[in-house]
Amino acid sequence: MSTPTVNRRILLASRPHGEPAATDFQHDETTVPSPGPGQVLLRTLYLSLDPYVRGRMSAARSYAAPMEVGDVIVGGTVSEVVESATDDFSPGEVVLSYGGWQEYSLEPAEGLRRLDPEVAPVSTALGVLGMPGFTAYAGLLEIGRPQPGETVAVAAATGPVGSAVGQIAKAKGARTIGIAGGPRKVEHLRELGFDEAIDHREPALAERLEEAAPGGIDVYFENVGGPVWDAVLPQLNEFARVPVCGLAANYNATELPEGPDRTGQLMASVLAKSLTLRGFIQREFAQTHFEDFLADMSAWVRSGEVRYREDITEGLDRAPETFVGMLRGDNFGKTLIKVS
Amino acid sequence: MSTPTVNRRILLASRPHGEPAATDFQHDETTVPSPGPGQVLLRTLYLSLDPYVRGRMSAARSYAAPMEVGDVIVGGTVSEVVESATDDFSPGEVVLSYGGWQEYSLEPAEGLRRLDPEVAPVSTALGVLGMPGFTAYAGLLEIGRPQPGETVAVAAATGPVGSAVGQIAKAKGARTIGIAGGPRKVEHLRELGFDEAIDHREPALAERLEEAAPGGIDVYFENVGGPVWDAVLPQLNEFARVPVCGLAANYNATELPEGPDRTGQLMASVLAKSLTLRGFIQREFAQTHFEDFLADMSAWVRSGEVRYREDITEGLDRAPETFVGMLRGDNFGKTLIKVS
Repeated sequence: MSTPTVNRRILLASRPHGEPAATDFQHDETTVPSPGPGQVLLRTLYLSLDPYVRGRMSAARSYAAPMEVGDVIVGGTVSEVVESATDDFSPGEVVLSYGGWQEYSLEPAEGLRRLDPEVAPVSTALGVLGMPGFTAYAGLLEIGRPQPGETVAVAAATGPVGSAVGQIAKAKGARTIGIAGGPRKVEHLRELGFDEAIDHREPALAERLEEAAPGGIDVYFENVGGPVWDAVLPQLNEFARVPVCGLAANYNATELPEGPDRTGQLMASVLAKSLTLRGFIQREFAQTHFEDFLADMSAWVRSGEVRYREDITEGLDRAPETFVGMLRGDNFGKTLIKVS
Repeated sequence: MSTPTVNRRILLASRPHGEPAATDFQHDETTVPSPGPGQVLLRTLYLSLDPYVRGRMSAARSYAAPMEVGDVIVGGTVSEVVESATDDFSPGEVVLSYGGWQEYSLEPAEGLRRLDPEVAPVSTALGVLGMPGFTAYAGLLEIGRPQPGETVAVAAATGPVGSAVGQIAKAKGARTIGIAGGPRKVEHLRELGFDEAIDHREPALAERLEEAAPGGIDVYFENVGGPVWDAVLPQLNEFARVPVCGLAANYNATELPEGPDRTGQLMASVLAKSLTLRGFIQREFAQTHFEDFLADMSAWVRSGEVRYREDITEGLDRAPETFVGMLRGDNFGKTLIKVS
């Protein structure tokens, strides 16, 4: 491969107000840098698009520091080593990194994880065998703790986190309810083995959920918020657990919804039903559970107990529109950009 | 003692709308019954008044079935055995029972706990050594899990639950913030050894709380809800725990507060700070932790590490007005009616 000279990147041009607009993204080109001691130059193969990045585009402090205007947009990547100034990596090796929305990135060797294409397609390190899969695993098993015979519900259930939640819950002997948007996704939930598949666009969502969970819901893995949460809350059983992993329905919100204020009502439900609501970020469990996850999840993928779907778009230039579409729910599986 | 013939009782006359009115209570008299096999006739010495009873006066299902109109109002009691039709109890013995708002009650011997007046004043079985003390102990230690050096905040902190929460937290090495209404109660918080004492009636409650918790709050024992919760939430640290034990501020509410709807904002805080919100009722822990509680709490009371205060009103007739006053925060310590 010839030595690259131009690095195309996408920067945060302005903080979005509501749904990100094309003008919030700036496409630019710089010179590809050279690695200093201990560094490697990486060429991005796959870029992961994830809902949490919308949060980091805003100035408000969330669980991670916001990006600054002018920064390369952040994101996990699967990349190939192009040049190495360390003995730890050689050109041609494939690694998991956090290169962001650009064709080339310079990274310290430490913190990179080498991927073996013989074991699994390398793109899975951004999905079922990566952060989304681990988010599902840790949140469901450490916080949700489903018992055999209990009922587990999850929304955005064809997404990379939701689909893993449902299939892991099933592998652990739970009854599973998947919620997703539109007939194609609902059909896919059935293919994935969910016991019940519900379209959240149905007008009678609450009634449909009540039918699907005649014994109530013991674990609700929360990654959307909004009307789905409103419909789930009354169905939760005493001692139900709610791992709070994401609130995609709110990410583009620009103001609080109209009243009345139902905060007190939510707290009253927490009290009356001895509920557990527990927010979490997967990194909390990384040290203690990632190895177990890799072993378990690789086995489930091999056995077919956990299946995954990737939604791959070609070309870095299409990252902004694909990202916005994902926030709307247009994606169908793990959203990836094939960069080169 | 002569054999009693008249049993004065207070019944639920109608379900309160908002704050209970005098007309929601019906005073009546019946004949004192005789114990059947395995039963004892009890004379009420002390009646416990507790906020949760307001919930049971409403028709809405909470964590316990509602009372029916015409029922004797429920409540824990410390009572003396008057007649016994079982070998397990003899006249003159004092027991913890659930006799409700009446002078005499008939109860099966099983489920009664004998009290020893030599060990502690029998009234404490309704307070610091009873359900309120156990609520504090189980919720704080099993859900809040304060670590030495962490900061624990509690509202209604001169009440029987809140004062125990603060003092147990202190005994476990935590820094404690007590919140209560009015200067006399705040003064009492200082006497109880709280590190910080805050009057929730102060207009700048949020600022005052921020000053009092420069390192943030790690455990907030929730027993009031409302504006105190609004002020506490921004001060919670990452991984903070919130045992949700009561929501006294809402008990008399007749409609939801005005908007905007901040439910999504609350969930966003749970996510951004990896918070744990966990509702509980003390009975969840009774089998597993009550013995430990009695041993620990008795020792703390003897050593003076945990002090308690009782607010005793004489005469069953005054139970309704005392109950309503307690819901308003007029009580100062564990609210008891001395019945006979």
